[in-house]
Amino acid sequence: MPDILLKRFGHVVRERRLERNLSQEELADVCCLHRTYISDIELGKRNLSLTNIDKVAAALNMSLSELFKEIENKHETL
Amino acid sequence: MPDILLKRFGHVVRERRLERNLSQEELADVCCLHRTYISDIELGKRNLSLTNIDKVAAALNMSLSELFKEIENKHETL
Repeated sequence: MPDILLKRFGHVVRERRLERNLSQEELADVCCLHRTYISDIELGKRNLSLTNIDKVAAALNMSLSELFKEIENKHETL
Repeated sequence: MPDILLKRFGHVVRERRLERNLSQEELADVCCLHRTYISDIELGKRNLSLTNIDKVAAALNMSLSELFKEIENKHETL
């Protein structure tokens, strides 16, 4: 289910970013990643590496298990 | 903590593989990945993509959140 997983991942990143009132630029700065990369992640277009997943989770104040739990909970709704 | 994370990830993959009595070849076959790639993962030498993390977790019969919970629980011991 690769594509669906990337889309779910992006969806949760976007939701959490908006909850935290961060722009894509601001999240990108905290992650030390590029804004267009964050945009692509949110669109499910990026197959991130483990270290970049970790950067994004940390910037959203989530542990990796919390982030993936939330993604799994989207299973039925996306 | 990129390197530590990769090492912890590899450690948990190895533990779970051995618990399931799988060789690296057998796990590689289930994941559709190469045996040397599994070996590198276990040594913390690979920064896997999200889709490959998903393949490995599925092959170990773990959800992504379970896999990362176990990695986080290793925090104090590795």
